[in-house]
Amino acid sequence: MKALVYHGPNKKLWEDKQKPVIQEPTDAVVRITKTTICGTDLHILKGDVPEVTDGRTLGHEGVGVIEEIGPSVTNFKKGDHVLISCISSCGKCDYCRRGMYSHCESGGWILGHLIDGTQAEYVRIPFADTSLYHIPEGSDEESLVMLSDILPTGFECGVLNGQVKPGDTVAIVGAGPIGLASLLTAQFYSPSEIIMIDPDDYRLAVSKKLGATQTINNKKENAIEKVKEFTGKKGADSVIEAVGIPETFELCQSLVAPGGRIANVGVHGKSVDLHLERLWAHNITITTRLVDTITTPMLLKTVQSKKLNSKQLITHYFKLSEIIQAYDTFQHAEREKALKVILTA
Amino acid sequence: MKALVYHGPNKKLWEDKQKPVIQEPTDAVVRITKTTICGTDLHILKGDVPEVTDGRTLGHEGVGVIEEIGPSVTNFKKGDHVLISCISSCGKCDYCRRGMYSHCESGGWILGHLIDGTQAEYVRIPFADTSLYHIPEGSDEESLVMLSDILPTGFECGVLNGQVKPGDTVAIVGAGPIGLASLLTAQFYSPSEIIMIDPDDYRLAVSKKLGATQTINNKKENAIEKVKEFTGKKGADSVIEAVGIPETFELCQSLVAPGGRIANVGVHGKSVDLHLERLWAHNITITTRLVDTITTPMLLKTVQSKKLNSKQLITHYFKLSEIIQAYDTFQHAEREKALKVILTA
Amino acid sequence: MKALVYHGPNKKLWEDKQKPVIQEPTDAVVRITKTTICGTDLHILKGDVPEVTDGRTLGHEGVGVIEEIGPSVTNFKKGDHVLISCISSCGKCDYCRRGMYSHCESGGWILGHLIDGTQAEYVRIPFADTSLYHIPEGSDEESLVMLSDILPTGFECGVLNGQVKPGDTVAIVGAGPIGLASLLTAQFYSPSEIIMIDPDDYRLAVSKKLGATQTINNKKENAIEKVKEFTGKKGADSVIEAVGIPETFELCQSLVAPGGRIANVGVHGKSVDLHLERLWAHNITITTRLVDTITTPMLLKTVQSKKLNSKQLITHYFKLSEIIQAYDTFQHAEREKALKVILTA
Amino acid sequence: MKALVYHGPNKKLWEDKQKPVIQEPTDAVVRITKTTICGTDLHILKGDVPEVTDGRTLGHEGVGVIEEIGPSVTNFKKGDHVLISCISSCGKCDYCRRGMYSHCESGGWILGHLIDGTQAEYVRIPFADTSLYHIPEGSDEESLVMLSDILPTGFECGVLNGQVKPGDTVAIVGAGPIGLASLLTAQFYSPSEIIMIDPDDYRLAVSKKLGATQTINNKKENAIEKVKEFTGKKGADSVIEAVGIPETFELCQSLVAPGGRIANVGVHGKSVDLHLERLWAHNITITTRLVDTITTPMLLKTVQSKKLNSKQLITHYFKLSEIIQAYDTFQHAEREKALKVILTA
Repeated sequence: MKALVYHGPNKKLWEDKQKPVIQEPTDAVVRITKTTICGTDLHILKGDVPEVTDGRTLGHEGVGVIEEIGPSVTNFKKGDHVLISCISSCGKCDYCRRGMYSHCESGGWILGHLIDGTQAEYVRIPFADTSLYHIPEGSDEESLVMLSDILPTGFECGVLNGQVKPGDTVAIVGAGPIGLASLLTAQFYSPSEIIMIDPDDYRLAVSKKLGATQTINNKKENAIEKVKEFTGKKGADSVIEAVGIPETFELCQSLVAPGGRIANVGVHGKSVDLHLERLWAHNITITTRLVDTITTPMLLKTVQSKKLNSKQLITHYFKLSEIIQAYDTFQHAEREKALKVILTA
Repeated sequence: MKALVYHGPNKKLWEDKQKPVIQEPTDAVVRITKTTICGTDLHILKGDVPEVTDGRTLGHEGVGVIEEIGPSVTNFKKGDHVLISCISSCGKCDYCRRGMYSHCESGGWILGHLIDGTQAEYVRIPFADTSLYHIPEGSDEESLVMLSDILPTGFECGVLNGQVKPGDTVAIVGAGPIGLASLLTAQFYSPSEIIMIDPDDYRLAVSKKLGATQTINNKKENAIEKVKEFTGKKGADSVIEAVGIPETFELCQSLVAPGGRIANVGVHGKSVDLHLERLWAHNITITTRLVDTITTPMLLKTVQSKKLNSKQLITHYFKLSEIIQAYDTFQHAEREKALKVILTA
Repeated sequence: MKALVYHGPNKKLWEDKQKPVIQEPTDAVVRITKTTICGTDLHILKGDVPEVTDGRTLGHEGVGVIEEIGPSVTNFKKGDHVLISCISSCGKCDYCRRGMYSHCESGGWILGHLIDGTQAEYVRIPFADTSLYHIPEGSDEESLVMLSDILPTGFECGVLNGQVKPGDTVAIVGAGPIGLASLLTAQFYSPSEIIMIDPDDYRLAVSKKLGATQTINNKKENAIEKVKEFTGKKGADSVIEAVGIPETFELCQSLVAPGGRIANVGVHGKSVDLHLERLWAHNITITTRLVDTITTPMLLKTVQSKKLNSKQLITHYFKLSEIIQAYDTFQHAEREKALKVILTA
Repeated sequence: MKALVYHGPNKKLWEDKQKPVIQEPTDAVVRITKTTICGTDLHILKGDVPEVTDGRTLGHEGVGVIEEIGPSVTNFKKGDHVLISCISSCGKCDYCRRGMYSHCESGGWILGHLIDGTQAEYVRIPFADTSLYHIPEGSDEESLVMLSDILPTGFECGVLNGQVKPGDTVAIVGAGPIGLASLLTAQFYSPSEIIMIDPDDYRLAVSKKLGATQTINNKKENAIEKVKEFTGKKGADSVIEAVGIPETFELCQSLVAPGGRIANVGVHGKSVDLHLERLWAHNITITTRLVDTITTPMLLKTVQSKKLNSKQLITHYFKLSEIIQAYDTFQHAEREKALKVILTA
């Protein structure tokens, strides 16, 4: 089969590779029908994720069709259409039993990281019964690719941890795919205001279309002053960090209202300054989280019932065999006005 | 001034009455600009609420303008436009400090019940600072009359107690004003399905317009079978009782899924059969509640930000002086296709 | 091997039976070292649980040693000392993933009910990885038999659902083993008062020793008046029903304070009167639950750290081969002053 | 009357001052019977709190007897024995209605800060109805002085925000009075382990007496390694920061388990490094809080019912007129082995 293989920093090839086989009785092999590329894949390609070694097939998102199951798999059978979770969950360890699949003792984020991933014609999925989800017949499978990672990430790490509530003011720093996933899913809870903050006017325009009530271009405008203006000087109840650099986390600390929450979604490479000299008395909550994908069944329902239109995040379409070109587009997101790309086998 | 005064079962008059005055330093006198009639007022008129005695001005809903304030009132001043809460809250007792204003030791539901109410040209409001809410300039005040009682009731007793969540299936038994208030506010949480159950086709048609995904006429159809059909035999996650008779509470017990909630909103006059012989092992939660109106500030924000269009509940308009005619319309709700009426001074 | 086998109402025999074998790859066979008898076993023997058919080995509690594991079992190996949960959980179905193991689609309460149970020399445990718990070396295994069923039942159905909090007043109706399990675990949350109500003075005396601050013999005293007296007329914040008959559930409704909770633990055979004509406005919560045993890992920690002394519930000791005599003692609990019995193989 | 008056950095005098009078109708004047000194008072004396100006009477803790009430005060009368909350709450503003009294728009921490405080023979208490608490007859009033500030602070900022649960492992960094208040109140929730970390062996010995299961002298031992050892390498579920310097907050970040909480209680003067490069994926929660004293009624109940022995925090006793000497003792806490001092009028 063909797969997109990492060969060290800045080297990737769409090349022939052995088709995966069942290794454990709980495995399934899935024929990929649609996959996508994540910002994390770009981090890996830069060499920022040293656990990813030469020869690794990338990708942790996708939908497909069950090709083969291990003898212990009971929830799925050959031919079933499935959504692949970016998080593998054994279902048995303490963390899984507590709903914290991200820290599964033998799973977690392993696809396209510690084992071969989904940017390939076939992928082996460990713990299939608890890491795959049935796709109801008649579903728009493209929409569902967004449920492998970015929608649960934006929702769990941003919206749930940010405790978004009806009537709240939400500020989201970063209008990339993850920030937009937070924007879409924040609307599950009917906040009064959702303020998107980003330096890219195109992304802010998309944000408006996707439900933002206010946008701030923080290259051109003073985000702190604008948020104060929008909130009667109080600040935002929920602030979602969807970038992952010290500057944006710093900004979040200036935007949050007393009693508010800062929900970190961004992947950070450096420590940040936490202004406890000011915040110690502000009754705030800061959260971090690697997505658990515990809300995937719920998100599937909201897509089915059209409460969530995840397709709006897709801007570009490619054949799976055009994946090198798709990476190029995704890597030049601003130039290409790209959000999420879909690769169809 | 004129007021709608109760004179014993089935006797009410729009008659002259002394204009109310400040009695306690925490009182305000409000000039009513708009009020409405509640199902509870009809119960009182039937003689079902013996605490209401001859001579009582009815009504516990409305908006108006501050006419006079007591010396301790600090949040309001003469001329302020205010929303009147149906629940008076002293702000000081244990219950108020716990957010359970319905059980305020010197307040609670007293307007149009234990003291004179809002169906009059003027009303005295005890504990004004903690029982009135500022109406922002430019608001649609008719919409806000719905926030005196039915919207917080539908929301707190039905939706919050029913723990409605994204992706859930909600069944609401009763499509009268309160059931519709639950329907509107359930949508704050993006449930996948909201099934309205009522014997009146007009109200079911209104329900569809207001966001119900399914309707069941339980005079013509088997509600239990239909809900099973809509929910893959599981039942509904949240069941909201918005009628108040044994039959409907009985129905709710057959609709609720294992792990689900029955949130009682209806005012009951009789005990009901609780089928613990079946439900003891179903992991369900049943709640009762007299509205606390603790969510009024939040509801005001959702109306301001157009997340909630409470005006959709209003079907008829009268002058305040036509209140006898308005009662007639409201008492014949089915014939008149009436939901909520607005009386304007 | 020997097993205690049900042969229709009021017929049980300690007889020879085939030793169980691995049937599914997720099974384990456990050699029972200690087991006990539950009130539910007595119900079965009366013929009240028609799903239990002739030939069924009874019992759903116990500790033992792994004798054999199926090929998919990864958490346990031959020779491990294990605690058996009364609830079998597949770990994969929607209910298990939501933590509601009691409603597991292929498990739940099946031991000694739909499949052969633990009152035998060996038992087959389905879904071993997610239905057994490691016993740390050096543990008092007798104490841990109490964690198969009654402690999680008293805790989850009574204390957690009753939302017991520091400073609360708790009333527990029924001082049998389950009520006492609620009494012991309610103390995890430091309520100010725990009032035990039972008609048996011996059990009330035990309650005092186990931490009750007040006891009421409701055969001799007016429980409603006494609870009002103890609570400044307010009633109890949490009321736990640990009997399972209409009279006691009726009593609970008179004991609960506004804003309080009634947590049903009792197994009911009849419907009960729910006084919504009074309670609709009292802001109360009523819960039902079949134990999920989701708190077993936590309970194990509290036993290990001596926050919970579950051994206090044990009054009688027998050899496993004396089980007929043990049943006789347990069936005459009042005469024998019996709470829980331990049977040692 | 006499009062302890601040006259700029390092200058304080026990001097004559005008007895306070009722200024607002919601005020009460309280005759102080017992008061104490807080670490914050030492900060003020160093000049670290610039809002405190020359002439201010210090102190925000104490119990006393109502001397006079304003005309709007309804909950109290002359002669009542009262506990003074360190936080004044108007009961009417948005923050007070949400239970966030610390941010009351006209109150909050003002005693001994923005208005004259409790280290005097008399003190004026604004918003008396919602800032004072009745002391039940027969109470040990010395114990209750601990409820003005340190017990609600240790409990709300440390234990509640740290979400301490039965079976949890708790690490408390700092064994001063506030850390010990967290230690005492953490036990409301029956954690399995409470590890106290401090460089002072005397305070660690006190911690053991007050319920710590482990102690670490972090001047002599490697706290990170020891906590790993005590927790099977996982780290602590709840970590409570009760010091207020970058080093201890840094330590907390190394002690917290995945999924755990860091509850900041310490008053910080500098920003700290937050290691998001490591913690972004650890699913942790960090909280800050100025005490709201919303749990004071509950804490009073736990003291009354002897679930909480707050007296254990008191080490030294003085007459109120010996307050200069008491400050000297408290300022040399290590030398004097001082925790809290009581000053009796």
